[in-house]
Amino acid sequence: MGARREPIEYSAASAEVRAVYDDIMATRNVKWVGNFWKVLAHDPPTLQRIWSNIKQVMGPGSLDPLTKELLYVAVSASNGCHYCIASHGTAARKKGMTEAQYSELLSIVGLANETNKLVTALGVDIDPQFL
Amino acid sequence: MGARREPIEYSAASAEVRAVYDDIMATRNVKWVGNFWKVLAHDPPTLQRIWSNIKQVMGPGSLDPLTKELLYVAVSASNGCHYCIASHGTAARKKGMTEAQYSELLSIVGLANETNKLVTALGVDIDPQFL
Amino acid sequence: MGARREPIEYSAASAEVRAVYDDIMATRNVKWVGNFWKVLAHDPPTLQRIWSNIKQVMGPGSLDPLTKELLYVAVSASNGCHYCIASHGTAARKKGMTEAQYSELLSIVGLANETNKLVTALGVDIDPQFL
Amino acid sequence: MGARREPIEYSAASAEVRAVYDDIMATRNVKWVGNFWKVLAHDPPTLQRIWSNIKQVMGPGSLDPLTKELLYVAVSASNGCHYCIASHGTAARKKGMTEAQYSELLSIVGLANETNKLVTALGVDIDPQFL
Amino acid sequence: MGARREPIEYSAASAEVRAVYDDIMATRNVKWVGNFWKVLAHDPPTLQRIWSNIKQVMGPGSLDPLTKELLYVAVSASNGCHYCIASHGTAARKKGMTEAQYSELLSIVGLANETNKLVTALGVDIDPQFL
Amino acid sequence: MGARREPIEYSAASAEVRAVYDDIMATRNVKWVGNFWKVLAHDPPTLQRIWSNIKQVMGPGSLDPLTKELLYVAVSASNGCHYCIASHGTAARKKGMTEAQYSELLSIVGLANETNKLVTALGVDIDPQFL
Repeated sequence: MGARREPIEYSAASAEVRAVYDDIMATRNVKWVGNFWKVLAHDPPTLQRIWSNIKQVMGPGSLDPLTKELLYVAVSASNGCHYCIASHGTAARKKGMTEAQYSELLSIVGLANETNKLVTALGVDIDPQFL
Repeated sequence: MGARREPIEYSAASAEVRAVYDDIMATRNVKWVGNFWKVLAHDPPTLQRIWSNIKQVMGPGSLDPLTKELLYVAVSASNGCHYCIASHGTAARKKGMTEAQYSELLSIVGLANETNKLVTALGVDIDPQFL
Repeated sequence: MGARREPIEYSAASAEVRAVYDDIMATRNVKWVGNFWKVLAHDPPTLQRIWSNIKQVMGPGSLDPLTKELLYVAVSASNGCHYCIASHGTAARKKGMTEAQYSELLSIVGLANETNKLVTALGVDIDPQFL
Repeated sequence: MGARREPIEYSAASAEVRAVYDDIMATRNVKWVGNFWKVLAHDPPTLQRIWSNIKQVMGPGSLDPLTKELLYVAVSASNGCHYCIASHGTAARKKGMTEAQYSELLSIVGLANETNKLVTALGVDIDPQFL
Repeated sequence: MGARREPIEYSAASAEVRAVYDDIMATRNVKWVGNFWKVLAHDPPTLQRIWSNIKQVMGPGSLDPLTKELLYVAVSASNGCHYCIASHGTAARKKGMTEAQYSELLSIVGLANETNKLVTALGVDIDPQFL
Repeated sequence: MGARREPIEYSAASAEVRAVYDDIMATRNVKWVGNFWKVLAHDPPTLQRIWSNIKQVMGPGSLDPLTKELLYVAVSASNGCHYCIASHGTAARKKGMTEAQYSELLSIVGLANETNKLVTALGVDIDPQFL
């Protein structure tokens, strides 16, 4: 009755779901697909949509691939999404993130949350120099 | 009676507050101090503490200065702190952030929030490959 | 020493707590009470107050019972409350929510979080047509 | 220097941006485009991507159009996004949302946030009946 | 068309709304009612329900009245609700909150948000001494 | 590959980490150190910085030690940080927090979250009496 959904493995997936799994594996040059995608597979249009978004947003652009992953990890850490920290943290490490960089990222996440709250609570007016 | 605090200008500040303002201006090589610091100045130990934290966290390290600002902007954007987006966005631009990079940063913030929520709502188990 | 509280079972409950449990079971036409209520039972006035709020807000009104549960699930999913997603998701299914509807609900929760963050970060002005 | 972006009007928009504006107006059968889209237009791939997501998620499906808007309003209200409440609230009213329904929606948002926090803070275990 | 609601003044209020306004003024020994109540008045059952909750939760108990207001201000500051910070901050000052106490409260809110995020991001296991 | 960090025990810690552990134990008059500090120890400057912040913010001031802990628990409960609720809840109990006080604190956290969301969603204007 609950609200959880079990991962759908490749062997049990429909052709349209397998096509997305195949594209994920080919794009990332790996031989497996994460549970996030396997759970989204209960709703194939959403699986395709979210993967298409990820491909576009995390693909080549003005920010280098490591910086993109660091930003994804930072937002996920700020939001407390453990799966996302683990999956994008792993991706960031593959792209070169060091332990020292991860430590600094976490410090920024923590401190930004502190100052974000102080600024918002105090209703600080934006300085004209920032406009 | 309210909870807002007015900025304390340099001319009205105590010696200990001025010392922090002076250090902020010297460290950043600018001739003014933002409203955040002027509002924190109602509580000098907190002004010193937060500035000291910012100096340590945002100072030289393993991540380059631009990446640090991008991370700060991303967390602030995710938290909806307009002052913080404006102030750290300005700092990021001074350090070289382009319009295209800012666009990509915002896209990552938006998409990470979408997937963070989906993952958390669905209670996705962390794959062993991410441990 | 911790901050958790153990559920208080019917057999161990005071008369005033049992009265609330009885009303929950009668209102919902079930023979058991969820852990949320059993944990709140450590504080009987709060147990009564929260139950009274739920009864009023989720009772008959202008929105049909299924829509009310869908809204509760959506907010709970957005907030990442697993217990709430599970309990209100179960209630929604009893009232007719299909798998396809649940998928669409989750998609809306995810996308709304993405656009909410983008809009807030960008400080978009409200169009006069929306006032 | 700041982080805000001004709306790009139709007359000043590129052909690719106009194509999205045209599709928004045609899909919704209106003669104007909201500021959200005009601000996203600084980044045409993101404009196209977000519009494409909205079209897919909010288009015909298992949930009726009003219920979809109510869910969008509820999540936006829970997240405190005024622009989103105003724009999706307007859409919901066009699709038939009454004042009484809006009141009930807000009550659910408020109460769900209260119980979500209580449940999460108390670490309530999910009952087997909800699994 | 929008989603905002205008305050309903006493002179324009129904008898049932006036009864709540009268009780608010009598309970607080003041001669006016805040905009929050006047906006809730569009939905009299919700006006009564929320006021009844506030009366019960903020009324006499084990925590002294000032501590209760400080807790309300702290949560509101953490959530960035300006109206709530202003209204409960005013109430706290009437009950004796000093500027120094308000400064300390804000420091705790900021620091708790920093450590809450670090702890959650790092997935720290609860020590047995805290159970 | 993941993003979690294991606690660093005293016996395995560097001299600079041990110095912080020693100061934590001496300040709190206990013979052990919580997992939060042991996980932060992977990044000694952050360990020192956060501990220094906690010492300053939670040390003697205008608010009594119990009230400070109650505020920390309330913010942590509102943010759903279980470790923080458990650790600061334990500290609050050592300083005298009763079960009844904890119940009232939780009620305030829950209700403040409800009214914070309603106020923010409704865009209530701040009354001049609160300015």
